[in-house]
Amino acid sequence: MALLKSFIDVGSDSHFPIQNLPYGVFKPESNSTPRPAVAIGDLVLDLSAISEAGLFDGLILKDADCFLQPNLNKFLAMGRPAWKEARSTLQRILSSNEPILRDNDVLRRKSFHQMSKVEMIVPMVIGDYTDFFASMHHAKNCGLMFRGPENAINPNWFRLPIAYHGRASSIVISGTDIIRPRGQGHPQGNSEPYFGPSKKLDFELEMAAVVGPGNELGKPIDVNNAADHIFGLLLMNDWSARDIQAWEYVPLGPFLGKSFGTTISPWIVTLDALEPFGCQAPKQDPPPLPYLAEKESVNYDISLEVQLKPSGRDDSCVITKSNFQNLYWTITQQLAHHTVNGCNLRPGDLLGTGTISGPEPDSYGCLLELTWNGQKPLSLNGTTQTFLEDGDQVTFSGVCKGDGYNVGFGTCTGKIVPSPP
Amino acid sequence: MALLKSFIDVGSDSHFPIQNLPYGVFKPESNSTPRPAVAIGDLVLDLSAISEAGLFDGLILKDADCFLQPNLNKFLAMGRPAWKEARSTLQRILSSNEPILRDNDVLRRKSFHQMSKVEMIVPMVIGDYTDFFASMHHAKNCGLMFRGPENAINPNWFRLPIAYHGRASSIVISGTDIIRPRGQGHPQGNSEPYFGPSKKLDFELEMAAVVGPGNELGKPIDVNNAADHIFGLLLMNDWSARDIQAWEYVPLGPFLGKSFGTTISPWIVTLDALEPFGCQAPKQDPPPLPYLAEKESVNYDISLEVQLKPSGRDDSCVITKSNFQNLYWTITQQLAHHTVNGCNLRPGDLLGTGTISGPEPDSYGCLLELTWNGQKPLSLNGTTQTFLEDGDQVTFSGVCKGDGYNVGFGTCTGKIVPSPP
Ligand SMILES: [Ca+2]
Ligand SMILES: [Ca+2]
Ligand SMILES: [Mg+2]
Ligand SMILES: [Mg+2]
Repeated sequence: MALLKSFIDVGSDSHFPIQNLPYGVFKPESNSTPRPAVAIGDLVLDLSAISEAGLFDGLILKDADCFLQPNLNKFLAMGRPAWKEARSTLQRILSSNEPILRDNDVLRRKSFHQMSKVEMIVPMVIGDYTDFFASMHHAKNCGLMFRGPENAINPNWFRLPIAYHGRASSIVISGTDIIRPRGQGHPQGNSEPYFGPSKKLDFELEMAAVVGPGNELGKPIDVNNAADHIFGLLLMNDWSARDIQAWEYVPLGPFLGKSFGTTISPWIVTLDALEPFGCQAPKQDPPPLPYLAEKESVNYDISLEVQLKPSGRDDSCVITKSNFQNLYWTITQQLAHHTVNGCNLRPGDLLGTGTISGPEPDSYGCLLELTWNGQKPLSLNGTTQTFLEDGDQVTFSGVCKGDGYNVGFGTCTGKIVPSPP
Repeated sequence: MALLKSFIDVGSDSHFPIQNLPYGVFKPESNSTPRPAVAIGDLVLDLSAISEAGLFDGLILKDADCFLQPNLNKFLAMGRPAWKEARSTLQRILSSNEPILRDNDVLRRKSFHQMSKVEMIVPMVIGDYTDFFASMHHAKNCGLMFRGPENAINPNWFRLPIAYHGRASSIVISGTDIIRPRGQGHPQGNSEPYFGPSKKLDFELEMAAVVGPGNELGKPIDVNNAADHIFGLLLMNDWSARDIQAWEYVPLGPFLGKSFGTTISPWIVTLDALEPFGCQAPKQDPPPLPYLAEKESVNYDISLEVQLKPSGRDDSCVITKSNFQNLYWTITQQLAHHTVNGCNLRPGDLLGTGTISGPEPDSYGCLLELTWNGQKPLSLNGTTQTFLEDGDQVTFSGVCKGDGYNVGFGTCTGKIVPSPP
């Protein structure tokens, strides 16, 4: 079968060919109303313009106003039939042999924008944000450092996808500067606790699922239906202040060590676009309890990479390479577990995977692991470094390599700026 | 000075005299648009009607549409000057010697409703909900039960107000049934973990602060200005499944043991109404770090009571009596700590105090403590009980006793219904 091609020129390295069509929300100018879009090549396609032109002519979307909204929440709530219809309409009108948009100069000028010229914003209202802890390698490394080899992984970890509630208000879009948090760190001996700018600022390489239709309070979602409640995935940097976190987290978990900022990438890649990259999830031993046992247990082959551009330098170094396949608990298990107690999810909720570390030292997903809590500095083209310095820029990228095309996530980036005085 | 009196008849036991005027949001009929209100005696006063009639004639509110909203968020964002102006206008137009509302029969019929006839709803959009752990007695009792006398209170507890992010989606209004959560509990020996309806369902007697104006990401709120960011307080029941919580909470804190439901009372009592009941907060030793050191450290003398009406019975038993004064960390310290890392708060955010236990066994704020983890059943007029049974109803009340009047919170109630099959 010939590869589907668009009339829009898309380079072979692009993350955004017609096979992808990830969703985001953008503003053409900084004072314009936000509008939903998909990415194609170096362009964004304004879905409000396509909707107003009547090109969404399928049964579900033809009278819908979901693309005339400043966020994706209404579209997310509509569920997979609407998502499939939108994808099929967009792949058709963008394809090289369909004239309806290709040959309409007025509509093309109105609906396409250079990606480099527009401002991307957080694409949905996030009612609640949850962060899981689903990589066994990450759990083991944290345990080895803080609890020793005997209790490296707590016994509950193999029985349920551990998670905590995160802070929704401080989720920001890729490109937003991250202000170094101030806070308390462990006291030395009998002295006062440290207070000041964090000395152990870190990133966490994560991805996150965006929830589509939610559930009513008290009505759990079955693990075998969970995929219908997940719209897609994005890249997420769960910035972490290790000194603040270490001092505060017993017994109620991470709080100010995390809540100063969490960066997400602007484009949500749909599960439909990821389908060709689905693969078998790791075998779980002990076997999961029945409510977590899936008929099919799917991970995705997504290559992940972290680049660090140290303050004052022009060159970036790749400091780790990992893969979404390193997750032990699948995103559908995460979602089913989240609701098994009756907790309600809402469209736009964000479910972070937790740090995606692989088994090898060059695949660890944060500086805590990569530098073994600062004991083994990284070599960066001649200099060395442990935790993040002011001015450092951290950039994640993620991509699935298809046969002749990519389905990619673009980048998720942020630069550290100094604490307020 | 003679006591301020309203032309509305208010019994001397009422929680809602003209000195109080707490804010809520109600629907006159189940299909009507929600609207802001204050409580007075047995009535609710529809603030949209008062606003439309032009009775808010002060500088800040005369052209504002904050009471023509389905929630309080816009009013919360306006800050203390607007809150003071609204209070002063409402106390004037409700006073016995002011004819403008008293003698306007049409407006009276339009704007007053019997409280027993209307439906109260969650009065604000809650972007994020945080739960603190601010009673030393509660922290100590939990520590004694789970970690033993040596490490009863972790050293960080005396240095910072410990907290975790809670789940905003499952916050419900008083009167909503609580569905018993299902989940995992500790395995016995080498067996599988327990899975099923929680066997240790508990309440937690709490209050919560409602955030007014928020702060920008990266701009902490000074502890001495924190009170200007707090609109008022309400009663909160942080329902907790102790078996689920105990198995899941290491190392990331409470998650499904809490997220199945949190009940709040419908009326927010303003800090202005509480001012006469302010009192010195406990002396803190060690002294707090400078960012938590307040010029004035204020608690409130609020008597709290929990009644349990066991399934199938008509009589309720008072099972504990506590007081807001039992908090070690003040709500202003909680708020300042929450933002010291730069975390942004938004209008309508909820900051729970944590379980408000007193020093004596009959002032403990949850069944975990009252029954010492089920080992010492409660006596309830002849029967005994440890954790909550299906059909049990738990009702909190809170009141400040003034000279000739109360400033009360009404009640916060919920009934346990069985897990889904
Ligand atoms: Ca994380
Ligand atoms: Ca609590
Ligand atoms: Mg974060
Ligand atoms: Mg709760």
